[in-house]
Amino acid sequence: MKMLRVDMKESRILWEPVPKEYEQLGGRALIAKLLLNEVPPACDALGPHNKLLFTPGLLGGAIVATAGRLSVGAKSPLTGGSKEANAGGTGGDSLGKLAIKAIVVENRAKSKQFQILVIDGDSAELVAADDVVGMGTYATSDKLWERFGADSTVICIGQAGEYLMTGAGISATGERDQRSNHAARGGLGAVMGSKGLKAVVVRKPLGRTPKLANEELFRKAAKAFAQELIQSPKLGTKGSQHLYGTASIVGAVNEMGSFPTRNFSEGKFEHAAELRGEKIRELVLAREGKVGTRCMPGCVIACRNLYPDASGKPIVGTVQYETIALVGSNLGLGNLDDVATLNYMCNDFGLDTIEAGAALGVAIEAGLAKFGDMEGIVGLLKQVGDGTVLGRMIGCGAATTGRVLGIRRVPVCLGQAMPGYDPRTLKGNGVTYATSPQGADHTAGNAFGARNEVNPLGIEGQKELSLKLQIIAAMLDSTGLCLFARPPIISNPQLMIDMINGIYGWGWTKDDYDRFNRDVLRTELEFNRRAGISQKDYRIPEYMREEPLPPHNAVFDVPDSDLDTVFDTL
Amino acid sequence: MKMLRVDMKESRILWEPVPKEYEQLGGRALIAKLLLNEVPPACDALGPHNKLLFTPGLLGGAIVATAGRLSVGAKSPLTGGSKEANAGGTGGDSLGKLAIKAIVVENRAKSKQFQILVIDGDSAELVAADDVVGMGTYATSDKLWERFGADSTVICIGQAGEYLMTGAGISATGERDQRSNHAARGGLGAVMGSKGLKAVVVRKPLGRTPKLANEELFRKAAKAFAQELIQSPKLGTKGSQHLYGTASIVGAVNEMGSFPTRNFSEGKFEHAAELRGEKIRELVLAREGKVGTRCMPGCVIACRNLYPDASGKPIVGTVQYETIALVGSNLGLGNLDDVATLNYMCNDFGLDTIEAGAALGVAIEAGLAKFGDMEGIVGLLKQVGDGTVLGRMIGCGAATTGRVLGIRRVPVCLGQAMPGYDPRTLKGNGVTYATSPQGADHTAGNAFGARNEVNPLGIEGQKELSLKLQIIAAMLDSTGLCLFARPPIISNPQLMIDMINGIYGWGWTKDDYDRFNRDVLRTELEFNRRAGISQKDYRIPEYMREEPLPPHNAVFDVPDSDLDTVFDTL
Repeated sequence: MKMLRVDMKESRILWEPVPKEYEQLGGRALIAKLLLNEVPPACDALGPHNKLLFTPGLLGGAIVATAGRLSVGAKSPLTGGSKEANAGGTGGDSLGKLAIKAIVVENRAKSKQFQILVIDGDSAELVAADDVVGMGTYATSDKLWERFGADSTVICIGQAGEYLMTGAGISATGERDQRSNHAARGGLGAVMGSKGLKAVVVRKPLGRTPKLANEELFRKAAKAFAQELIQSPKLGTKGSQHLYGTASIVGAVNEMGSFPTRNFSEGKFEHAAELRGEKIRELVLAREGKVGTRCMPGCVIACRNLYPDASGKPIVGTVQYETIALVGSNLGLGNLDDVATLNYMCNDFGLDTIEAGAALGVAIEAGLAKFGDMEGIVGLLKQVGDGTVLGRMIGCGAATTGRVLGIRRVPVCLGQAMPGYDPRTLKGNGVTYATSPQGADHTAGNAFGARNEVNPLGIEGQKELSLKLQIIAAMLDSTGLCLFARPPIISNPQLMIDMINGIYGWGWTKDDYDRFNRDVLRTELEFNRRAGISQKDYRIPEYMREEPLPPHNAVFDVPDSDLDTVFDTL
Repeated sequence: MKMLRVDMKESRILWEPVPKEYEQLGGRALIAKLLLNEVPPACDALGPHNKLLFTPGLLGGAIVATAGRLSVGAKSPLTGGSKEANAGGTGGDSLGKLAIKAIVVENRAKSKQFQILVIDGDSAELVAADDVVGMGTYATSDKLWERFGADSTVICIGQAGEYLMTGAGISATGERDQRSNHAARGGLGAVMGSKGLKAVVVRKPLGRTPKLANEELFRKAAKAFAQELIQSPKLGTKGSQHLYGTASIVGAVNEMGSFPTRNFSEGKFEHAAELRGEKIRELVLAREGKVGTRCMPGCVIACRNLYPDASGKPIVGTVQYETIALVGSNLGLGNLDDVATLNYMCNDFGLDTIEAGAALGVAIEAGLAKFGDMEGIVGLLKQVGDGTVLGRMIGCGAATTGRVLGIRRVPVCLGQAMPGYDPRTLKGNGVTYATSPQGADHTAGNAFGARNEVNPLGIEGQKELSLKLQIIAAMLDSTGLCLFARPPIISNPQLMIDMINGIYGWGWTKDDYDRFNRDVLRTELEFNRRAGISQKDYRIPEYMREEPLPPHNAVFDVPDSDLDTVFDTL
């Protein structure tokens, strides 16, 4: 294993051995530790001292189902804290196969010219990006596939990242012609832009697989894990995730009254039925699009769709739950074609759909358009690509948009927009939003799946639930596992321990595994503390404690004393 | 003495006795304590739980030269911390004469309609503001003078405050037809806007003067104080402050290389000579404008000018140093007519000229106009009044403008723009900017006057100097004294103690006085701590520690360890 260090100021590339401290870390765990060790926590997130990190999870490159996610990290310009976001596609698998533990991008380019980092086997170089600067992520991916081969993974930013918008994400390609997987959250695309890095291209590693320390142990565990996934009633080929994708939950979230509607002012959307996963499947099949495809090599869940317009021409792949909630119901739009169009635009600009949807909701509340008015909304969103002041404001996310427009109803925690679960009616998620070192983020610990276990409207048990889920999320994000693949590991952690020991021969015990997971959070919290982030900075916005959310008319009422003690048993 | 409590939600007005805890407090000291006691520190600054406070200083209403400033306070939407800003004019004197210790404005108006609080003797009422909504502060003042009598004090916001822009200040009228004194800093105008309060009108109190506990003691001290001011070589009628106004320091600051130029990228401006106080006097006299007028009743310094255009028509009164630096050299403008025009526009919108100038500098760096291009700059600034997205961004100040436009060179501390002294070459001010509970603010402790005492380019002695100055500033802001009147009090604090004892009969000792001053800072720091503001939030921006400032090529290099211990001896 090795690390690739790229100094953008000097255009210098160094291969380094992996320091002992990092050997047993991957994905988010490695990002957290590298940030704490190498990045001054109070630094300017878009300045030269921040570092942009790409890391595969511990399972990256090994043949494990649904486990090739690529983690990207930096100090977030949106939250000001430690940030990891991960994407599907082939990036995690490729870096794993190349035995690249981390790419560390340092400093800022001297000129304003953008460059591309090209990794081919054991060599790496920086080349000019002049032919793709100013382009969206789709055109950039196509152009770089042309230039470097269609079997490369293209990891890139769009206009949002180039303009340093704090809602900018990073796009990564997948198998065949699949583009637009996104490490979307926290403004990592702006960090990439600030480094002067337009793209990372990883040539497909041929004939490389990680050496296995204990092949038998690994294969047995990996096989059992895959079987569990396939046989799961939710995840397998007859499961709702496979059939309807992440949007399978639209109906349930709407019934709970937690479906963000018209800038989080209601929890139930009258057109929710038009946005359900079942509807996606029906439309996609009728229009001869694709359902049940995968974003990562070897994924057995295959939740992905390719959504076409009425004429059968693909609009975007894949329409997902969070996007549906944030640019659909949250903007008063009850039409999947509209959602898909806005989704495509965000993906192309390289903009987090959650942050963009929340920002647009705030802008509409301020009167810049009307809820449900697709034309007006497109008019706002397209300015992101044009780089107008209005577009930059939207691209900087909900908090900045609320600040500029003087709006109080801004659904953010730690400066980051909330995903598709209103915390007033899914209070476990509220606890996660208000305590996670990542800011408001469902992937940091989503209580939706535990709604039958802990009453989503009650206070009791929420803080314990959130902590449990946050620890699991840290594990997922550090191994490269998709969060939909978590059930088999939750019910039998030994499967994960065996896979890791099978690959690396570390002889991890259950205690080692548990410490590993918890250390991720501890490290991130410490980074944030050193960055000057205090408990008050994490809080749920004031209005959500006071404005009842129809139709349940619930407020967020988990006491601060609970929030402040979530990590006491970490 | 009494307090006036105004509930904007219920349109309810209550006269209250002054609780014992507040009896011996005034101005900033009273604001700090009221905020700590009554406002939840982590609340939304533009939400219902913040309170807007108006307080005269301890000397307000008494016949003391240069001592009638009106303090305004709230939790700042710009810094997130405890905020006091004060203005000249007749407001402080009138409230003092009416024995109103504080006006406490609570909650938010139910509808979006604005109201006016009218105080006439011992009665007060809320009336509709429909005739002045949407107007700038000049037209609002004129209209309300018409409506309520020309001898009223009109305290109001312009469009910036109505739009909740976080750079909005509050304007107050002075004697005769004098308008546009400003409690400019920290976005207090936005707090006023969020309450639905367009203006406070105070009818001139006739025949009311505070009872004096010890008339002889008071008169003797007040007379000695006035004599000291009059005889001071700097302040008296032959002094530079009187002759040239606050702009008398342009030459010296420029020579020090501390004169903010082109978005704080240089410390010396090639056209500085065109911006000097001497030049103002020359032009104003030639054009038959006014110099040497006063903003407060009884001021013997009289530093104010009324700056006319070439045809003799008044543009604005008064052109001051900070405005000259921020909308002059900082924007590459070397022409006083341009400065006066931008000054007028800011005043009329009710926008802090420091925040506006810093925001415009950042916007120009981002390419929205060119340094020195008056037409382009006016084009940007006028959008504040129009309420466009660009205008709102500028009106929200430098930090927001930098965020939206992706600019790293943003001269702020605690979210508030720096005034006209680059901290790299006047390091004492850097310490004040980076530690004051008020954020970057020269009035919180300006080391310029001590430049011969402590080397402005050195590190040694800066933290002690800053603390000393911050304590003095707290005293000034709490007594209603103008900061130009501080020299006699600094050299002989007994004068202040005697004036206070003469009015109130409290029998203060030097120790009481000292504790009073220090308590202001302690209280504010505690509020900020409870608001979640950490030491890291106060810091000088990273780039100022790294980018040498021509021509001295100095960086800000006072170590964090010094900053973190400034208040150890408080």
